[in-house]
Amino acid sequence: MTKVAILGIGTVGSGTADIFQDNADLIRKNVGDDVEVKYILCRRMRPDSRFAPRIVLDFDVIERDPEVKVVAECMGGVDPAYDYVARAIRAGKHVVSSNKQLVAERGLELTHLAREHGVAFLFEGSVGGGIPVLRPIMRCLAANRIDSVYGILNGTTNYILTEMIQCGKSFGQALKEAQEKGYAEADPTADVEGIDACRKICILSDMCFGYNVDPAQVRTEGISKIASVDVDYARRMGYRIKLLGRTLRLPDGRVTAYVAPHFVDMENPVVNVDGVLNGIVIHGNAVGNTVYSGPGAGASETGSAVAADILDCLTGPMDRQPIWEAQPEGYFMDADELACRWFVRTKAGLAEIGEAFGSVRFVSIPGGDPEEYAFSTEEMSRKRLMEVGAGMGLLAAYRILDE
Amino acid sequence: MTKVAILGIGTVGSGTADIFQDNADLIRKNVGDDVEVKYILCRRMRPDSRFAPRIVLDFDVIERDPEVKVVAECMGGVDPAYDYVARAIRAGKHVVSSNKQLVAERGLELTHLAREHGVAFLFEGSVGGGIPVLRPIMRCLAANRIDSVYGILNGTTNYILTEMIQCGKSFGQALKEAQEKGYAEADPTADVEGIDACRKICILSDMCFGYNVDPAQVRTEGISKIASVDVDYARRMGYRIKLLGRTLRLPDGRVTAYVAPHFVDMENPVVNVDGVLNGIVIHGNAVGNTVYSGPGAGASETGSAVAADILDCLTGPMDRQPIWEAQPEGYFMDADELACRWFVRTKAGLAEIGEAFGSVRFVSIPGGDPEEYAFSTEEMSRKRLMEVGAGMGLLAAYRILDE
Repeated sequence: MTKVAILGIGTVGSGTADIFQDNADLIRKNVGDDVEVKYILCRRMRPDSRFAPRIVLDFDVIERDPEVKVVAECMGGVDPAYDYVARAIRAGKHVVSSNKQLVAERGLELTHLAREHGVAFLFEGSVGGGIPVLRPIMRCLAANRIDSVYGILNGTTNYILTEMIQCGKSFGQALKEAQEKGYAEADPTADVEGIDACRKICILSDMCFGYNVDPAQVRTEGISKIASVDVDYARRMGYRIKLLGRTLRLPDGRVTAYVAPHFVDMENPVVNVDGVLNGIVIHGNAVGNTVYSGPGAGASETGSAVAADILDCLTGPMDRQPIWEAQPEGYFMDADELACRWFVRTKAGLAEIGEAFGSVRFVSIPGGDPEEYAFSTEEMSRKRLMEVGAGMGLLAAYRILDE
Repeated sequence: MTKVAILGIGTVGSGTADIFQDNADLIRKNVGDDVEVKYILCRRMRPDSRFAPRIVLDFDVIERDPEVKVVAECMGGVDPAYDYVARAIRAGKHVVSSNKQLVAERGLELTHLAREHGVAFLFEGSVGGGIPVLRPIMRCLAANRIDSVYGILNGTTNYILTEMIQCGKSFGQALKEAQEKGYAEADPTADVEGIDACRKICILSDMCFGYNVDPAQVRTEGISKIASVDVDYARRMGYRIKLLGRTLRLPDGRVTAYVAPHFVDMENPVVNVDGVLNGIVIHGNAVGNTVYSGPGAGASETGSAVAADILDCLTGPMDRQPIWEAQPEGYFMDADELACRWFVRTKAGLAEIGEAFGSVRFVSIPGGDPEEYAFSTEEMSRKRLMEVGAGMGLLAAYRILDE
């Protein structure tokens, strides 16, 4: 009998525990031994929970029990998760985590700590929920130089945008309904302002390009300012608005990363990834684009990824521990310098627009505000856009994804 | 310096060799050693080839060279590929293969032979070209009971169907253009009649459900009989015609597999997988549907998968050798017994249709043949459909994918 422990009894923690119960037979076959969730760490006792007999309140119990081979951290947040994970690693236990904030902010230290101690620190569930992404990058695309990764990394915002696009709802309406359905939290800030997606694109950048990117470096724009009229303009132009996290390696070797709403064309492989689903596009120099989509959140969905990591710890030696190094000087390019075409909406006059942006393509929609102009620009950086648009009262400026 | 050998210098063989040259630095970093393609087995010398210095004509050279750690079989066909692969395994070499016919027809023996000899036999490139599919099944979905797999497994037929759908071309026209563009072979039978997709769905069934499925058991229908008018009816009904391979576990534990054109609704995750791309949907009981899409063929694309397998052989111990067992009695259900709704087109009269199919939903298109009726049926097996439709002169009968 192999024993594991789960930290946290929220959505992912309980989903993971259920998988070990529901799929016990196939897990036994896979591991060659029964696998038991011996402990579940909670903040308080839950006598009515189906997990009651395994609940412990004190991490010491887990840390000191040599029977526990793997610790699955499903708590979220950095404190006390970081402390528990580090202690588990130092105690010689493998650790898996679905905690994107922890991995994005402290993954650099924790992957190295794991290597020092000869254990694994895996975190497939931290990006894309149940969708296999990190392991395909590490193993299946191992012979590729990865050039770019982008995708829909947050289901809450994708759900809200889908409702705005398909049902004509406003952001506020769609958010309220998402909260009622449990797709958005009471305080939706981390989702709607792109903070969650930012953590995930940092992890992808770390893994694909080998150096740590700090979430604080990553320009992060959410969806709360998207007006219904922008959704209409996008449709008129043959696009849909999607919140994308994106990281890419530039020709000069620098790397950038950012989160922002994009106008995405109808041929793009993630344009039809709707609702709470996530979709990720990875470009490798040999394979080209490969696309991964599915449930980006949920109890058994993310639990599936956490459980897979646990099985890897139990069956596979740690030959390909994901690991990356501290960022060297000059490595990261501020995404404000990254050029693209833009969709712009403004109340400025034609002369002013012409002077600022040069050649643009205007677009109009039925019922559009006659005092506003909307257009797409030539390629320019965000920095340049902000300079030429300063004082023009830009009502909207969204990147157009041309790839 | 680690040495590998490639058998075959066709598209995939040369693509794989190029990757080891072009991405030598990152491969060295990954493996911890330089990796050299020491031999490439060909049928004849090619003094003008960029690979000329490594070309050998005699497999013995590779078999007897203890320096060769991995043999990549990229020849296609069963003879002599089977013999070479078996000999390489017996010589203690890891083998990787992109040869779907070999894996579908002889994978049962070869996976067991590899296990006996303590080496790996991997074949990520045999399904979905460069798209990671088999490794995600084995590792990322390891904690899931997989219930069904289906997808667009052949790029040639998907290209032809896409041209028929998007440009209104006939099958013959689209095939001819595909041949001119190099997407279809001079003898296109294996692609257009579904034989290639059949091999791939067999491999997926073998791996997901654990028992060998023989391609000869799998009802296989291609696209050569699809009329332009069926494409139009599909559109009218809100579907697109896609050639799908599909394998599923039935509630009674039996497994079925087949290849056939399907009417696929516009919400389906592979409905927009167009042109030469492949797209595969895997349903796990914990994660639900995950979707994988990308290039299903091509030199560097499939080479990416072959190279990843080679790196796995060189870096990872063979803890998760894919392996399956001989099919037990009563395991396989003929797909003719699998029920679904059907699209049917016939010249039979209304009374005859009513008598045969009961309640149906008729559909008409502008310019449709006034002597024909087209409709969708209630759920029925193919066996039943053939019984009730016998003597009616069914002009078309395609499954509607309701999932």
